Amino acid sequence: MNSFEHIRALLPSEARAAIRSGAYTRHTAGLAAGYLQANLVVLREVHALDFARFCQRNPKPCPVVGMTDAGSPQFRTLGRDVDLCRDVPSYNIYENGRITATVPDISSYWKEDHVGFALGCSFTFETALIAAGIPVRHIDADTTVPMYRTSIELTPAGPFGGTMVVSMRPIPRDRVAEAIAISSKFPLAHGAPVHTGSPGEIGIRDLAAPDWGDSVDIKPDEVPCFWACGVTPQAALLSANLPLVITHTPGHMLITDVPETAEIPVIQPNQKNAETFQPLSRGD
Amino acid sequence: MNSFEHIRALLPSEARAAIRSGAYTRHTAGLAAGYLQANLVVLREVHALDFARFCQRNPKPCPVVGMTDAGSPQFRTLGRDVDLCRDVPSYNIYENGRITATVPDISSYWKEDHVGFALGCSFTFETALIAAGIPVRHIDADTTVPMYRTSIELTPAGPFGGTMVVSMRPIPRDRVAEAIAISSKFPLAHGAPVHTGSPGEIGIRDLAAPDWGDSVDIKPDEVPCFWACGVTPQAALLSANLPLVITHTPGHMLITDVPETAEIPVIQPNQKNAETFQPLSRGD
Repeated sequence: MNSFEHIRALLPSEARAAIRSGAYTRHTAGLAAGYLQANLVVLREVHALDFARFCQRNPKPCPVVGMTDAGSPQFRTLGRDVDLCRDVPSYNIYENGRITATVPDISSYWKEDHVGFALGCSFTFETALIAAGIPVRHIDADTTVPMYRTSIELTPAGPFGGTMVVSMRPIPRDRVAEAIAISSKFPLAHGAPVHTGSPGEIGIRDLAAPDWGDSVDIKPDEVPCFWACGVTPQAALLSANLPLVITHTPGHMLITDVPETAEIPVIQPNQKNAETFQPLSRGD
Repeated sequence: MNSFEHIRALLPSEARAAIRSGAYTRHTAGLAAGYLQANLVVLREVHALDFARFCQRNPKPCPVVGMTDAGSPQFRTLGRDVDLCRDVPSYNIYENGRITATVPDISSYWKEDHVGFALGCSFTFETALIAAGIPVRHIDADTTVPMYRTSIELTPAGPFGGTMVVSMRPIPRDRVAEAIAISSKFPLAHGAPVHTGSPGEIGIRDLAAPDWGDSVDIKPDEVPCFWACGVTPQAALLSANLPLVITHTPGHMLITDVPETAEIPVIQPNQKNAETFQPLSRGD
């Protein structure tokens, strides 16, 4: 197998090591299969409580799976040695609401009053859809999922607010109910769709012109299904116009040691070998 | 019907009005059936981020369903006119880690830098167990559920830490799997049990001597099942030894407008009539 096939089969700690060393710099879809991946947000502690409130009030687009202590770049509950400054393949630096750099390491940006948030991502339910034999178009096409701004208002907190961003996947009409049931089992990965069917009802004018990602074909027997999207907090952060915010580059996620089937996204920090530790599973 | 039977059938806003007026002062089990009830924690904003971290890291005992803005006693995402200062039948005032008063209204204690947290409670899954025909002993006996300190270590955050408090319900051996499956559907109400069977394995020495609540009989064909308990954050708050913390009095919960079957515990603040609004349900 080639080097990219090799890295897909790695354990989370091995994938993070490859990313940290600079050996792997691409998107993380499919890496360390079976383990939770997360969106990353870094901001100053003075804004962290409002951001925590914003996420609590908008749990569909912003499911929090980790919060660091101020000044600590380690997500101690997400695994052994998960360093948010070095373990994401690519980061976006935003200053005063504008992207000013895309970098492979944020150690030089990290400050003592910074707090990191990890938010669940759609890779988890996509894996479950594929496992059930439901096709996921953008994965089959090897493109980035199409994402759209909507008219769905978020519940504001402090400087954070705006409208929801959604991702769209065309699902065969006779499998929509199943796709909803499957994704609803993953509330920490956006859960069930926020809308199915007519895009106009949520303020999307043209499915062929996504605001982020690549458009996909929708076949006659398919229904466009819209899930709350982890780009939502990035849009909310931009509109808050903070001096400095750091996020992952879309598609380039933080890989954790938490199994995707875990009931809660927490590994005890004193666990000697996080990778062999099984958190409580659903139905245990 | 008598006045207590009458109040059980009220809508959430009607039950809160009865509590706010002082007409109803007892525990809230069974009130406003079908709607989410919540544990209450009030503390100073300077401690709120650490408490939010503590809850995120320990989501089984501390499932956050609401956070107020600083100085606002309204849980705007939990319904129309939900006033945490007046809508709980009884509050405990803790000063420097000791309970100093139990009061029916905290308006005089409320400060501009106070933040309220609402945490999901076990009433939700108990309703579901009863609906499935699984007996809940302390409800049949009209006593308070037995609660125990355990040796299960919590993941600390700032001044908050310690060990988990659990509640115990004896379940017929042939229905334990079903009870687990039912409660696991309610992650915002403590989810699946953290332990079933031997109490010694989680540091409980004597089931007949609970640390809170009343002991219950366990029949020969029953298995003691232990759920993470909303008293856990109260114990963690006490050990943090803060100058002032306010909680509900155990059993005397905050009644919200959120249906128990809602996928997320959020009602849009601009919703004109929260009670008739149906948030996204599981599988919608």
